[in-house]
Amino acid sequence: MKFELKATDPNSSARAGVMTTAHGDIQTPIFMPVGTAGTVKAVHQREIKEDINAQIILGNTYHLYLRPGLDILKKFGGLHKFNGWDRPILTDSGGYQVYSLAGIRKIKEEGVTFQSHIDGSKHHFSPETVMDIQRAIGADIMMAFDECTPYPCEYDYAKKSMEMTHRWLKRCCDRFDATQPLYGYDQTLFPIVQGSTYKDLRKQSAEVIASFERDGNAIGGLSVGEPHELMYESTELVCSILPKDKPRYLMGVGTPENILEGIALGVDMFDCVMPTRNARNGMLFTTQGVINIKNKKWEDDQTPIDEHLGGYVSTFYSKGYLRHLVHCKEMLGAQIASVHNLTFYLWLVKQAREQILAGTFLEWKNKMVKHLMQRL
Amino acid sequence: MKFELKATDPNSSARAGVMTTAHGDIQTPIFMPVGTAGTVKAVHQREIKEDINAQIILGNTYHLYLRPGLDILKKFGGLHKFNGWDRPILTDSGGYQVYSLAGIRKIKEEGVTFQSHIDGSKHHFSPETVMDIQRAIGADIMMAFDECTPYPCEYDYAKKSMEMTHRWLKRCCDRFDATQPLYGYDQTLFPIVQGSTYKDLRKQSAEVIASFERDGNAIGGLSVGEPHELMYESTELVCSILPKDKPRYLMGVGTPENILEGIALGVDMFDCVMPTRNARNGMLFTTQGVINIKNKKWEDDQTPIDEHLGGYVSTFYSKGYLRHLVHCKEMLGAQIASVHNLTFYLWLVKQAREQILAGTFLEWKNKMVKHLMQRL
Repeated sequence: MKFELKATDPNSSARAGVMTTAHGDIQTPIFMPVGTAGTVKAVHQREIKEDINAQIILGNTYHLYLRPGLDILKKFGGLHKFNGWDRPILTDSGGYQVYSLAGIRKIKEEGVTFQSHIDGSKHHFSPETVMDIQRAIGADIMMAFDECTPYPCEYDYAKKSMEMTHRWLKRCCDRFDATQPLYGYDQTLFPIVQGSTYKDLRKQSAEVIASFERDGNAIGGLSVGEPHELMYESTELVCSILPKDKPRYLMGVGTPENILEGIALGVDMFDCVMPTRNARNGMLFTTQGVINIKNKKWEDDQTPIDEHLGGYVSTFYSKGYLRHLVHCKEMLGAQIASVHNLTFYLWLVKQAREQILAGTFLEWKNKMVKHLMQRL
Repeated sequence: MKFELKATDPNSSARAGVMTTAHGDIQTPIFMPVGTAGTVKAVHQREIKEDINAQIILGNTYHLYLRPGLDILKKFGGLHKFNGWDRPILTDSGGYQVYSLAGIRKIKEEGVTFQSHIDGSKHHFSPETVMDIQRAIGADIMMAFDECTPYPCEYDYAKKSMEMTHRWLKRCCDRFDATQPLYGYDQTLFPIVQGSTYKDLRKQSAEVIASFERDGNAIGGLSVGEPHELMYESTELVCSILPKDKPRYLMGVGTPENILEGIALGVDMFDCVMPTRNARNGMLFTTQGVINIKNKKWEDDQTPIDEHLGGYVSTFYSKGYLRHLVHCKEMLGAQIASVHNLTFYLWLVKQAREQILAGTFLEWKNKMVKHLMQRL
């Protein structure tokens, strides 16, 4: 994988770049729609590509390992062939889901034993098996197996956990470097900075992670309930240490505001379930602000969902019709809102990129954060 | 509304025609996807038009009356403007849902009092109000308010109910003829033949309905649990009486076999929830036969859902991937299967039309019924 910086904002740490992977280029900063079980929920692959203009999507290792399972993924020749998405894919390490979704689990130095949230069956993830699983999925970008600490987290636990994550990273790299891709194209591995919200731990972790000199680096353990200011402080600190010539990925973030602030701090990649999950609950992000489409005030509104955004669903369907669909729990409501919100997120990072290239990012960002987060 | 017969099969009663409505032409025989609450479940309007090639969709008066309600539909200028579907729409009379979905209900000569299945609120439908409601919806084809008898049904009840349906039809016609469309384009009204499975009643009802000389005629009260042979016998009898120069609509039918047999008996229009409802349960109708995609045998099948059918979803997605989605209860599974099944249904009636125009329908029909209903 290559990363080329195209521009840096003169008034912030925002950067515009291009990542090159075996499945195509990615213009950064970028938002990655989450395709948990090999599907971005309620959205056709054609829509992800042609309406949303996504350049890379995310798959969840935990879910894909359980269903359809590695045998089937291997028979198909990897996730790209399985779901028909021929642009880049990033997979997480499965760690986050093991901690948040799975039943009884035991975290040991060797790895984690857990029970499937689907049928209670027992499974084991280790740095080595997680590398093997992501080889079988065939993600362009694989993530290291880490422990994502909750918030708040005791200092001692955060320190010990971070140190284990660093030891696990060594094992991930050893396994990754000792194995070959299964499907004839290159994969790469991103390590993850941890350390909770403790500055000394974050600094230490960022330095350790940077020392591995992988193709890109991620910031984990944030957006887990801490105040936004703490998230921004940790991100700023970590970005000041991670190498400038490699992409930085802030995991699980976030609202439009979080993303714009993250970009200002030097982050290049984001993912979050928010645009799709909130869509299914009737919350829309638009170029004019945030809409709860369930509200009665929208029931007779004949205007398009977002005429300024463009694209099929946002200009074809009216707010009143979408309100009716969501109110009636019709699937089409979730479908429309999901495509709309993702289109908005991809529009947002594209706008940010253009502002960075034009050298006008900071002022634009400060204006947009207020504008986009207002409730309509 | 105009109807022009283009061809009649020399070896059966199958016909090919063209209906002309204010929202465009309809090539018959035709299948109408069901869009209960103003949405064909799990399918975008763009997909209904461009992928499925539907020429007319159905809306349910009962559902639309309850949600979004007539005030909102009127504000938008009717259902076409509300949901963005600019081709023809047919609405049922709401009667069937009142009998099958609503809570406590009282059927009297004047009309029916019922409770909403959503919130238990009390409502009243009469021949007159149902005409007014369908005027407010703005359907191109409106249906008369009838009583749909269950199967089996006592002779005395079937006779009395049929006679009331005939009296209601007179009131429907009087109201329809005394009122104007609300949105500046023509609407038409189809009466409905009842009479359960009793031949003398069906004959009598068909004669009465024909005597009203409306633009088209419907056959109701079938496909409610009776053996297929009885459905075909009643359909054949009724078609022999209904005028040849007007379209005939067999309501709520059915499987691919039912539709082909119905066409052979002289039916021009069909609607059924089967393609979409079965899709959501993982049952696919394909050009090669019927598939239960939940079966384990499909889990590693890399072939397209139906390469012979054509169209985006049927050729882009594999059986194995769709099996995974349906197995995981992912919305995209229902979306893919719904578009596929409806594409198949519209393909089926288009093929039938071509065979009728070529004079080769009967032989083709006999072959296809066996071929299409086999389990794969």
